[in-house]
Amino acid sequence: MKQPQAITAILQQLLEQCQPLYSQGKVADYIPALAKVAPDNAAIAVATIDGQIHTAGAADKNFSLQSVSKIFGLVMAMNRIGDDLWQRVNMEPSGQPFNSIVQVEWEKGIPRNPVINAGAILVADVLVSHYSASKSAFLTFIRRLVGEENIYADQQVYLSELEHGNRNAALAYLMKSFGNIEAEVPDVLAHYFHQCATAINCRQLATSLLFLANRGVQPHSNEQICSRRDAHRVNAILSTSGMYDQSGEFAFKVGLPAKSGVGGAIVAIVPQFGVITAWSPALNSFGNSVVGMQLISLFAEELGLSLF
Amino acid sequence: MKQPQAITAILQQLLEQCQPLYSQGKVADYIPALAKVAPDNAAIAVATIDGQIHTAGAADKNFSLQSVSKIFGLVMAMNRIGDDLWQRVNMEPSGQPFNSIVQVEWEKGIPRNPVINAGAILVADVLVSHYSASKSAFLTFIRRLVGEENIYADQQVYLSELEHGNRNAALAYLMKSFGNIEAEVPDVLAHYFHQCATAINCRQLATSLLFLANRGVQPHSNEQICSRRDAHRVNAILSTSGMYDQSGEFAFKVGLPAKSGVGGAIVAIVPQFGVITAWSPALNSFGNSVVGMQLISLFAEELGLSLF
Amino acid sequence: MKQPQAITAILQQLLEQCQPLYSQGKVADYIPALAKVAPDNAAIAVATIDGQIHTAGAADKNFSLQSVSKIFGLVMAMNRIGDDLWQRVNMEPSGQPFNSIVQVEWEKGIPRNPVINAGAILVADVLVSHYSASKSAFLTFIRRLVGEENIYADQQVYLSELEHGNRNAALAYLMKSFGNIEAEVPDVLAHYFHQCATAINCRQLATSLLFLANRGVQPHSNEQICSRRDAHRVNAILSTSGMYDQSGEFAFKVGLPAKSGVGGAIVAIVPQFGVITAWSPALNSFGNSVVGMQLISLFAEELGLSLF
Amino acid sequence: MKQPQAITAILQQLLEQCQPLYSQGKVADYIPALAKVAPDNAAIAVATIDGQIHTAGAADKNFSLQSVSKIFGLVMAMNRIGDDLWQRVNMEPSGQPFNSIVQVEWEKGIPRNPVINAGAILVADVLVSHYSASKSAFLTFIRRLVGEENIYADQQVYLSELEHGNRNAALAYLMKSFGNIEAEVPDVLAHYFHQCATAINCRQLATSLLFLANRGVQPHSNEQICSRRDAHRVNAILSTSGMYDQSGEFAFKVGLPAKSGVGGAIVAIVPQFGVITAWSPALNSFGNSVVGMQLISLFAEELGLSLF
Repeated sequence: MKQPQAITAILQQLLEQCQPLYSQGKVADYIPALAKVAPDNAAIAVATIDGQIHTAGAADKNFSLQSVSKIFGLVMAMNRIGDDLWQRVNMEPSGQPFNSIVQVEWEKGIPRNPVINAGAILVADVLVSHYSASKSAFLTFIRRLVGEENIYADQQVYLSELEHGNRNAALAYLMKSFGNIEAEVPDVLAHYFHQCATAINCRQLATSLLFLANRGVQPHSNEQICSRRDAHRVNAILSTSGMYDQSGEFAFKVGLPAKSGVGGAIVAIVPQFGVITAWSPALNSFGNSVVGMQLISLFAEELGLSLF
Repeated sequence: MKQPQAITAILQQLLEQCQPLYSQGKVADYIPALAKVAPDNAAIAVATIDGQIHTAGAADKNFSLQSVSKIFGLVMAMNRIGDDLWQRVNMEPSGQPFNSIVQVEWEKGIPRNPVINAGAILVADVLVSHYSASKSAFLTFIRRLVGEENIYADQQVYLSELEHGNRNAALAYLMKSFGNIEAEVPDVLAHYFHQCATAINCRQLATSLLFLANRGVQPHSNEQICSRRDAHRVNAILSTSGMYDQSGEFAFKVGLPAKSGVGGAIVAIVPQFGVITAWSPALNSFGNSVVGMQLISLFAEELGLSLF
Repeated sequence: MKQPQAITAILQQLLEQCQPLYSQGKVADYIPALAKVAPDNAAIAVATIDGQIHTAGAADKNFSLQSVSKIFGLVMAMNRIGDDLWQRVNMEPSGQPFNSIVQVEWEKGIPRNPVINAGAILVADVLVSHYSASKSAFLTFIRRLVGEENIYADQQVYLSELEHGNRNAALAYLMKSFGNIEAEVPDVLAHYFHQCATAINCRQLATSLLFLANRGVQPHSNEQICSRRDAHRVNAILSTSGMYDQSGEFAFKVGLPAKSGVGGAIVAIVPQFGVITAWSPALNSFGNSVVGMQLISLFAEELGLSLF
Repeated sequence: MKQPQAITAILQQLLEQCQPLYSQGKVADYIPALAKVAPDNAAIAVATIDGQIHTAGAADKNFSLQSVSKIFGLVMAMNRIGDDLWQRVNMEPSGQPFNSIVQVEWEKGIPRNPVINAGAILVADVLVSHYSASKSAFLTFIRRLVGEENIYADQQVYLSELEHGNRNAALAYLMKSFGNIEAEVPDVLAHYFHQCATAINCRQLATSLLFLANRGVQPHSNEQICSRRDAHRVNAILSTSGMYDQSGEFAFKVGLPAKSGVGGAIVAIVPQFGVITAWSPALNSFGNSVVGMQLISLFAEELGLSLF
């Protein structure tokens, strides 16, 4: 493995190399609160299970967690209701857009996996139904993982999501019509949009997910966050389904479990090594950060991190 | 890593442990030639990149390669036309049955990936169009990989497939209507059914695919079969899409790139280690061998082989 | 044309003939308020444009209007916003279940026609957006058509629909996500369920729709309810799409524009002649009244009323 | 009803009125043989059941019958195997493109109706399986209906269709995979393309279908071509499904059973009155003749022929 200094130097170099790509994507504009983020921003962070953290770029600048929040919700729900979760959501890749309502209909209210929108809304239903205060429980969970308190939900993003959440409402009501949502739909959506609105930075995010690279144990606290088996399972799901309809291509090019969000973040898990996070707000047509994809792809190639 | 003797003992023990499952699946019966195979048959073989081969059960008994043949066809086509292949077939998981015609229609004749039927038929078109005698080229390729000559196409299975191949004909004509099949459809189907009808045994199959676990180099001959990058790519595709609509579950439970066929074979690639093959003809509702799944799953768990 | 006495006698005879069919269907049970209606009920009424009304069976017994209400809503919306309506809803048969969400997704929020659920919800949005009190306007419209005041919304059915309306909520939110619903979804659904809950009897219903058989003019009041062209249009839509996924079969067997509801009512329009209504609560698998279909079918055949 | 002279004058006037539309459509170009027809051609013919025939424009110029041939095939198949036909094809509108393969898959090899391509190919299978020489039987049938011998299959069109028929081959093989095609697919397709390639003119076509407006009896020969019930049924099917995905709009605007073909022909049946045929080769985006639609629409409005 490369020396620490080497890693930081590589990150810095890759960041410079990717600057020409800033203009190739398009910042998410389905809600005003996201649309106003400047596209010429980028950061990359690498946290390793032996406690190192390397960064380049705006690694302390907050962004909106968006779909990356699905990982945390999933771990919380697995911890809370165990394998019962898999009676209500499948674990197969979807082959459909992330917000597909067609598939929920065909599969009678059972989402294909927990990282497409329908599945994440179902996970939100589990949290709302099993926690007295699921929104704060979610924040508490992330804060504990990072070991820092300054992680919060951006109220402006949250309210903006609520206002533009008709499609997610359709998904939730459709699942409820099949009997697969227990709580009231507005409560489920409120939790879901709240978790999506989490403000976090690249450095924090890399640290937070180290347990997935370390058999369920968070290195800095030595706390067992989830079972070894569940850590494997989350990585498996991210591997087949984490990058929207570019998951196959990401496996093909990078070969690591990963998850992206429309806030521009991407996380990649390197089992037994650590976590790579990248952030840059301009997205490609699949909803994945253009620069983020490139940064992680080049870094993984440089260090030979592909699982395959 | 376990000692050689230990591995053989484990295989033998797992085989005995799985015998009660023989009756849980159903032998493929869509063609008479497959329907007559006795269900109480099973084998497992483990070939390692350092040249060992361990087996248990009927590891020298021939079975029909069926969809596992898609791997060999894919490697041949990648070698022959390079990245042009990815203009004509995608690399995303399908979220649809292996013989889905609906998806081919929606995606205008571009198959989702090369290991669903439509994609494998497209690969067959590449081979038919670029080899003067693609059927024998295919057999030559496998024989070279195994280092043995007694691998052939079972004529009875081949003719039976041809006779019952209407659905695959529909897929091929549909792709041709979109301009994505170059050769004549009957020639393409003849190649495809011929390669599916390959008779091989568990031991040979494990040996044949070692190059995928070894960065493209076949260990016994030290021959570069495909580029390191292409070996990674094949593993990535198998990881997201190799086990039909149970690919996500297999990643979840086992965590290895794998491919199954309705002849009852399953292969799993363990990068830097070797290849596991299992065979037992009775299939579950997804078309995967019941006993084969269980054998590989238990072996991978025993040795901690999951990539995640 | 048959003499009046003859018609009443025919109706009476057909009703007796159909009694053995009472047990062949199944009363709608998706809401409790409908499930409790006794299946051994039936009525038929024939209103003619020359002012006659013939009935047999429980022609004065109230039932729930349900999807037959879509006709009245459609006429109100056509009158209110004219051809602008056809920018927001198509007029093609759907080839999908009445509550299909898949088609709304594929056609980007534009319902196939105004008599499937999505289309009727869109029409409800037009009414909610263009009337200060759309629910009472709807009742006023029907009362005016019938010339009687005792037509009202059954509160128990209305509340029951609201409670079990998740699927319709999904349709509405999905259309709203495409920008094709103007009002707030809960208001639109409240109107829609309220109009479905209209309590009416067979005799009243036959009278109410005479204008569709009479070029837009209600015979008893000589009032122009809608334009001649719009009366034709409504009949055309009912002809291709009024009987759910049995519309083609109904055209084939009966050959008249018609609309059914899960309350067990069916109306058929006979241009230049009159309106036939039948009611019996037990439904076939398509959601059409078993006895109602048979009554109208036999009557139309007896009198040679097919348009074809 | 208008006087004969009046009708001819109206036709002439409508034809002149529609000339500016010649340039609005696009001649079918999926086969070269059709693509070369000049777009500035049009004809209209009206045959009445009392033996009159009125024409304007190029009413004696041959065109390619294409999908209008589905009517003749359907009548032949109904006559040959009776209601058994309806075990193998439905009678519902499709809500999908005329050449939809998706619907055939979903409905397990049973086409939605006999006038979409899949249904017409199924009908062709019936004819091939039940006639020793189905191609000549088809021509004999039309010649008998018209009372003229100079109706034939255009060999150039036929061969061109065969060469470009991959999509129809896909439909046929898919139905065969579901066990719903009895004969060999190439034979079925040969019949189907042969019947589509029938060369006929507007005057002949109007005469040929008079039996559908006359309860199954061909007026000039007084021959019962099909049962009264079957004549009604054909009209019902044309009414819901004859104009591709513009069937609802045609019912809405014109209100007559009708069928169009990509050769530019449209026929409309006016029960108890006669048959209107129009031809002009330039098509709209639905595959219907732009000028043909307009001619029939204006004529039907002028004479008040809508069934509704």
